[in-house]
Amino acid sequence: MQKKPARASASQMTELVLPNDTNILGKLMGGRLLYYMDIVSAMAAKRHSGRVCVTASVDFVDFKSPVELGEFVVLTAKVTRAFTTSMEVAITVYAENAQTSDRRLTNTAYYTFVAIDQSSRPIPVNPLEPETDEEKAEYEQALYRREMRLILAGKLKPELSQFPSLQGLKAQGQ
Amino acid sequence: MQKKPARASASQMTELVLPNDTNILGKLMGGRLLYYMDIVSAMAAKRHSGRVCVTASVDFVDFKSPVELGEFVVLTAKVTRAFTTSMEVAITVYAENAQTSDRRLTNTAYYTFVAIDQSSRPIPVNPLEPETDEEKAEYEQALYRREMRLILAGKLKPELSQFPSLQGLKAQGQ
Amino acid sequence: MQKKPARASASQMTELVLPNDTNILGKLMGGRLLYYMDIVSAMAAKRHSGRVCVTASVDFVDFKSPVELGEFVVLTAKVTRAFTTSMEVAITVYAENAQTSDRRLTNTAYYTFVAIDQSSRPIPVNPLEPETDEEKAEYEQALYRREMRLILAGKLKPELSQFPSLQGLKAQGQ
Amino acid sequence: MQKKPARASASQMTELVLPNDTNILGKLMGGRLLYYMDIVSAMAAKRHSGRVCVTASVDFVDFKSPVELGEFVVLTAKVTRAFTTSMEVAITVYAENAQTSDRRLTNTAYYTFVAIDQSSRPIPVNPLEPETDEEKAEYEQALYRREMRLILAGKLKPELSQFPSLQGLKAQGQ
Amino acid sequence: MQKKPARASASQMTELVLPNDTNILGKLMGGRLLYYMDIVSAMAAKRHSGRVCVTASVDFVDFKSPVELGEFVVLTAKVTRAFTTSMEVAITVYAENAQTSDRRLTNTAYYTFVAIDQSSRPIPVNPLEPETDEEKAEYEQALYRREMRLILAGKLKPELSQFPSLQGLKAQGQ
Amino acid sequence: MQKKPARASASQMTELVLPNDTNILGKLMGGRLLYYMDIVSAMAAKRHSGRVCVTASVDFVDFKSPVELGEFVVLTAKVTRAFTTSMEVAITVYAENAQTSDRRLTNTAYYTFVAIDQSSRPIPVNPLEPETDEEKAEYEQALYRREMRLILAGKLKPELSQFPSLQGLKAQGQ
Repeated sequence: MQKKPARASASQMTELVLPNDTNILGKLMGGRLLYYMDIVSAMAAKRHSGRVCVTASVDFVDFKSPVELGEFVVLTAKVTRAFTTSMEVAITVYAENAQTSDRRLTNTAYYTFVAIDQSSRPIPVNPLEPETDEEKAEYEQALYRREMRLILAGKLKPELSQFPSLQGLKAQGQ
Repeated sequence: MQKKPARASASQMTELVLPNDTNILGKLMGGRLLYYMDIVSAMAAKRHSGRVCVTASVDFVDFKSPVELGEFVVLTAKVTRAFTTSMEVAITVYAENAQTSDRRLTNTAYYTFVAIDQSSRPIPVNPLEPETDEEKAEYEQALYRREMRLILAGKLKPELSQFPSLQGLKAQGQ
Repeated sequence: MQKKPARASASQMTELVLPNDTNILGKLMGGRLLYYMDIVSAMAAKRHSGRVCVTASVDFVDFKSPVELGEFVVLTAKVTRAFTTSMEVAITVYAENAQTSDRRLTNTAYYTFVAIDQSSRPIPVNPLEPETDEEKAEYEQALYRREMRLILAGKLKPELSQFPSLQGLKAQGQ
Repeated sequence: MQKKPARASASQMTELVLPNDTNILGKLMGGRLLYYMDIVSAMAAKRHSGRVCVTASVDFVDFKSPVELGEFVVLTAKVTRAFTTSMEVAITVYAENAQTSDRRLTNTAYYTFVAIDQSSRPIPVNPLEPETDEEKAEYEQALYRREMRLILAGKLKPELSQFPSLQGLKAQGQ
Repeated sequence: MQKKPARASASQMTELVLPNDTNILGKLMGGRLLYYMDIVSAMAAKRHSGRVCVTASVDFVDFKSPVELGEFVVLTAKVTRAFTTSMEVAITVYAENAQTSDRRLTNTAYYTFVAIDQSSRPIPVNPLEPETDEEKAEYEQALYRREMRLILAGKLKPELSQFPSLQGLKAQGQ
Repeated sequence: MQKKPARASASQMTELVLPNDTNILGKLMGGRLLYYMDIVSAMAAKRHSGRVCVTASVDFVDFKSPVELGEFVVLTAKVTRAFTTSMEVAITVYAENAQTSDRRLTNTAYYTFVAIDQSSRPIPVNPLEPETDEEKAEYEQALYRREMRLILAGKLKPELSQFPSLQGLKAQGQ
């Protein structure tokens, strides 16, 4: 299959934080943000693959800064690398104050997706072509994150990892 | 502060998968599940701490089995360990077919929360008392997961970890 | 058909009261609670029958205690008795304060459901087997509630009731 | 306080049945209808009392005819009688087929509301003045329904009822 | 096809303004009102045509008065004229204060709809019969609004309009 | 007040069309699109003014192409000109097929907003500085659209317009 550039999958989404999205102190609930990140990264995966995509996993997500009621959440996503039937997507989230228009980083995350056909079976996707230096770095590091993911999911024995620093890692839930 | 048993935080939630929760092939969107997991684990954290709690981080989540339109999603959550102002919560998710009542495991996950006061500042929480063997195992392993979390978030230098197998791990996004 | 124990239908659901669920004074709207009760009792009816179930009727519901924004609503439901194609489900609702974890009873209710097949026609369900003393009492009293329901709906002449205390009752809307 | 005519509280609401409102066979979930009935009757109670009103109870509701995806639900509500701080509201629900515009009765119901002040305490409401024959009949019968409600809620001993046909009725849940 | 009277399409809808419908100062967002107007006018178009109808255009809408959290929005809609496969619907919106029951006009608008068949192709609708003086005036003026619409959409050259006052009008976006 | 460039207000939003957003034939309801356009243009107005903004009016909107269930809706908005306390925002909407990533124009629209202070009173906003040729053209044409708006709203006598082609235009609803 033909290579597709990373930029072809670039996706952006903006959400206004409404009362139902917040806890009793007016902070955006983490779960809403995880939901938005899923939508925007699914969009990137669909743009890359031209297929319906289902979420396969979510890497560690750190909530750096609370988002307030009435702020905008600005999310951008881009496929970093494709593997046979799956894709890794990098997501960056900023909160923007409506009054001051100041932006602050609230999250970065990696979601992976599997492309499926009409019968819900995995189907191959185009390889990804990184172009910028940043895209190339993400592309390289994606291998490391992928092995970490497989080890945490119990699908790869740590001692078989090609990365020495992962060879002692424990599967999650063990 | 007084120790509280893990069981005091046990929380359960059931959701019926509605059309708006699914993609075009009728599968529950991963982001909805992440949202439900956030609600049920926030509930466990609140029950333990008696405080408003905000999501601090989410560990790696692997989606093992797709959930279908019209199925029930059954989520259970329990605090595994408390650290000064934060708590780790373990979540287990089952999908249940409405016709057959068969249940299958779809996810396990760890969310962490910080308890906050009325001014949104972190506030100490009760220590956790594990009682069953499973609770004791989770309690012990929570330290390992916590250091992994700190390293991935860039808040702890890997070489300072007390766990040799984490000493080579890279911070996420590096 | 084979008898199924009441406990096999036991269902639980927890909801966090969000701003859109409340009136202008921050109290949960009664209609939201009626909606939640319908979901949890439909779940119990589905677990008993293994069928899609539609709400046939709702008995008198008394709202004993207002529920506040930010509280949890904890609902439990269990089938009390099955009749050919229908089932009666008993529901208990507690409100739980997030700070204090105090629980107070807000509602008890009985919903009835009819099991339907793919063509939306009623279809027989398994008889129910009560096991505990409480389940047996509910099972017995279900007959009384059923006749009351039929009279109120205008489907049974009061004077034909087997219960003398219902023989003078008027159909609703008359 | 001054009497207000029943017609001053007349309220109407129409809802289009959307996918999320239906079960897997495309029938409107009973709980959604109970929610709509609560909104339209709260509107009638507010129009009568000029106050925030909270749902106090719901009488027996019989679902006569399933409502389909894509149909309109047309609800009308009117206060039937006021009692110190509470009001009884009668609701009629029709389903309307979008293609044929045929209407069929799906429900009638009685909801009761209590008017509250800014501190959430009950506050007296205007007496109701029935004008038409139908309104006068509803006004008269409201006393019977009210006693039935009090008995079912366990707030009135059946033997103290002024209506002989209610003197043997059991409280619900007993 | 047979003429149908304007009154046969008359539709009414009432919505309670909930927190998620409002901005940070508690005012109903304009977009929610545009959404409600679409629903109520689609209902009128469906009642006239007995068909699924899709929104074709919206005329200029002026927001005269802000609507507050907790108020009711009362919308009425009626088809003013039918043209082969399309219909013009006039909508009037009032806001009603829940405490005082005072009503104030907030919007008037004209939406147009096209009736479609199962294959989503336009299909002819019944002509409209205006009966009251107001309906007759709307019916007459509908021609003027229609030409204005066609010019603004770039579908009619202004100089070909039968109305001299529209012959200089520019298409929107030019 | 200091001039601000048009590009500083540029806003983008993407929405996935879910079942509840569509009619029974799976087409996005026009009212949902009008709602999305309101959100994205409010965002542009807020970014320009640094204030809470309320929708003042919506110009004629033509729905050129139906949007399907499962497609993405991509909306962009930019302030075209500011007038004392109000701003005109231009919005462009594309539908994007998830499988083919083909984009097609579905709408263009102009919304106007008024900036308000904490007491909900209009407050002056920065003048707008157009930079590109397209921005300059929009800036010029905004005067024409504004007079048309004032005439349609009945706030300016047509004969007083500075544009001869608007001098015969009738106010809407007359």
